[in-house]
Amino acid sequence: VDTKREAEIQAHLDDLTKPKGSLGRLEELAQKYILITGASWPKIPQKAVFVFAGDHGVTEEGISAFPKEVTYQMVYNFLRGGAGINVLARHAGANVHVVDAGVDYDFEKNQDLIIKKVDYGTKNMIKGPAMTRQQAVEGILNGIEIAFDAIQRGYGLLATGEMGIGNTTPASAITAVITGKSPACVTGRGTGIDSDALNKKIQIIEQAININQPNPCDGIDVLSKVGGHEIAGIAGLILGCAAKKVPVVVDGFISTAGALIAHTLCPTSVQYMFASHMSVEQGHRIQLEHLGLKPLLDMDLRLGEGTGAALAMTIIDAAIKIYTEMATFSGAKVSPGNEV
Amino acid sequence: VDTKREAEIQAHLDDLTKPKGSLGRLEELAQKYILITGASWPKIPQKAVFVFAGDHGVTEEGISAFPKEVTYQMVYNFLRGGAGINVLARHAGANVHVVDAGVDYDFEKNQDLIIKKVDYGTKNMIKGPAMTRQQAVEGILNGIEIAFDAIQRGYGLLATGEMGIGNTTPASAITAVITGKSPACVTGRGTGIDSDALNKKIQIIEQAININQPNPCDGIDVLSKVGGHEIAGIAGLILGCAAKKVPVVVDGFISTAGALIAHTLCPTSVQYMFASHMSVEQGHRIQLEHLGLKPLLDMDLRLGEGTGAALAMTIIDAAIKIYTEMATFSGAKVSPGNEV
Repeated sequence: VDTKREAEIQAHLDDLTKPKGSLGRLEELAQKYILITGASWPKIPQKAVFVFAGDHGVTEEGISAFPKEVTYQMVYNFLRGGAGINVLARHAGANVHVVDAGVDYDFEKNQDLIIKKVDYGTKNMIKGPAMTRQQAVEGILNGIEIAFDAIQRGYGLLATGEMGIGNTTPASAITAVITGKSPACVTGRGTGIDSDALNKKIQIIEQAININQPNPCDGIDVLSKVGGHEIAGIAGLILGCAAKKVPVVVDGFISTAGALIAHTLCPTSVQYMFASHMSVEQGHRIQLEHLGLKPLLDMDLRLGEGTGAALAMTIIDAAIKIYTEMATFSGAKVSPGNEV
Repeated sequence: VDTKREAEIQAHLDDLTKPKGSLGRLEELAQKYILITGASWPKIPQKAVFVFAGDHGVTEEGISAFPKEVTYQMVYNFLRGGAGINVLARHAGANVHVVDAGVDYDFEKNQDLIIKKVDYGTKNMIKGPAMTRQQAVEGILNGIEIAFDAIQRGYGLLATGEMGIGNTTPASAITAVITGKSPACVTGRGTGIDSDALNKKIQIIEQAININQPNPCDGIDVLSKVGGHEIAGIAGLILGCAAKKVPVVVDGFISTAGALIAHTLCPTSVQYMFASHMSVEQGHRIQLEHLGLKPLLDMDLRLGEGTGAALAMTIIDAAIKIYTEMATFSGAKVSPGNEV
């Protein structure tokens, strides 16, 4: 991101008919959005949420409150438009594209489903690596390709989302490895497990890290050993956006695990990320602190799918409109103040 | 608010294709909205923001970073559609109606301006009451009438906003009196004054309270002695909404001072209020705690006008859509979980 235009953008924000800085984070969002895109006068972007779906071998340990088949069932729900992300994306004026990144199910063709299946789910990470290094690379490259394709089709603001029963477990493992925090610090209740199941989940994550010894400096290694195919796709989508200077809205805990992988591979990619919300999952705060990102919303969400990112898109649009639609002091004949 | 339907509403929320409670505050908003309106199946409401404008005699003490004439200049800016509230209300699909509640200026007729001028600004409250008791009552009744009229014209969700150079001073005074906190605790920098000016502002508020001795148990007395005409209108709008069982979105610090007055006059009115955001003004947190309301957004806003309320309206719409547009587990053939 070229920060040379910061002062010029700030001057315009300060000339709008409001006390300086009084629109707080909306002004900050406008500033960041314009710096990322490099546009002199930003337009309301075409928006899309990419929901990456994948299954997880570790579900055989009973770490989720939902059975594994819910992953493919929810893919159908997305394609029919009935899930939370469909409702919130419509509300935000964003399209939903579902990506089969590694679901243990064969889908028929559908125009809204992008099939980029790396495998029929990951392997059980307490018995060895979740996937091969080559599969991890393949998953990331798929995400990059999806981003490039979307940007070429005219999308100007992308968001990450995911579906994968059991995927708070790999997300917690990735977070523990990359941030250096203990699994107990970064592991939460996911879709809703009791305290006994939570303790078991923490033990499984500790075991997976011990057995696989992922290298925290090597994002591909971490992803292959304790990751997931949907998380690989998310990391790739983020990297693709950063490469093309397109802003990307990162959803909650699972998506931010993908952002951690992207950041490990390319630290400047974080400049292109908007953190949408603060999830209920306790590890999310630690992820965001690691990335130096401040979330826009804090609404006790823990659904995933991209729901927080879709809501945040409406706020980013609002910030762009503030920049382009408000009158200036001189134009509106309003007396300027002498604020400090 | 009739809470008998809580269980039925919760049962529907729990049947939607998501882990129970995973949409957090969106579910809470849907629950509250439906309980307020009493509708069995909520529709997206027609929305309007009412921006009450008034001037303040206390500005002659130099407590604001902006000159007094900015109040009427900004009214023209609202009517031309160039202010922050115009941009954010358009974004939310809400209309903006401006109310001259007590501006020191004579406006010509305009279809978007409701003239309910109680006086040409308040008196300087460090020299005596800001207005008469009768004027306070008149201002509240105007607000109630505006709410009734709006509801009759089909609006289903109203929001409060305001414009009045100097009005963080009366808002702080009202807050100190009603919550029992010291003026220093509840007074902030408004549009942007330095530390010396802030100390002077606190002293003026202390002086105004000492001279006028407002009775914290009598909202009309507080309003007349240290209030403002726009704050009276806001209190009335809220009471009018509560009387008609229509939800009202309360903006930031000044609007919540109006909510404190409304609450003093009718404690159950708080059940109809949505607190839109947490303002930068330090007294806002104390106001919200007094009312027992939790804000939806925290975006470092301190512009007023109704800007935070307009943003929050987009989130309330999202919550209603979640309730009415998401698929159910049985309908979508998704296996239910066993969350705790």
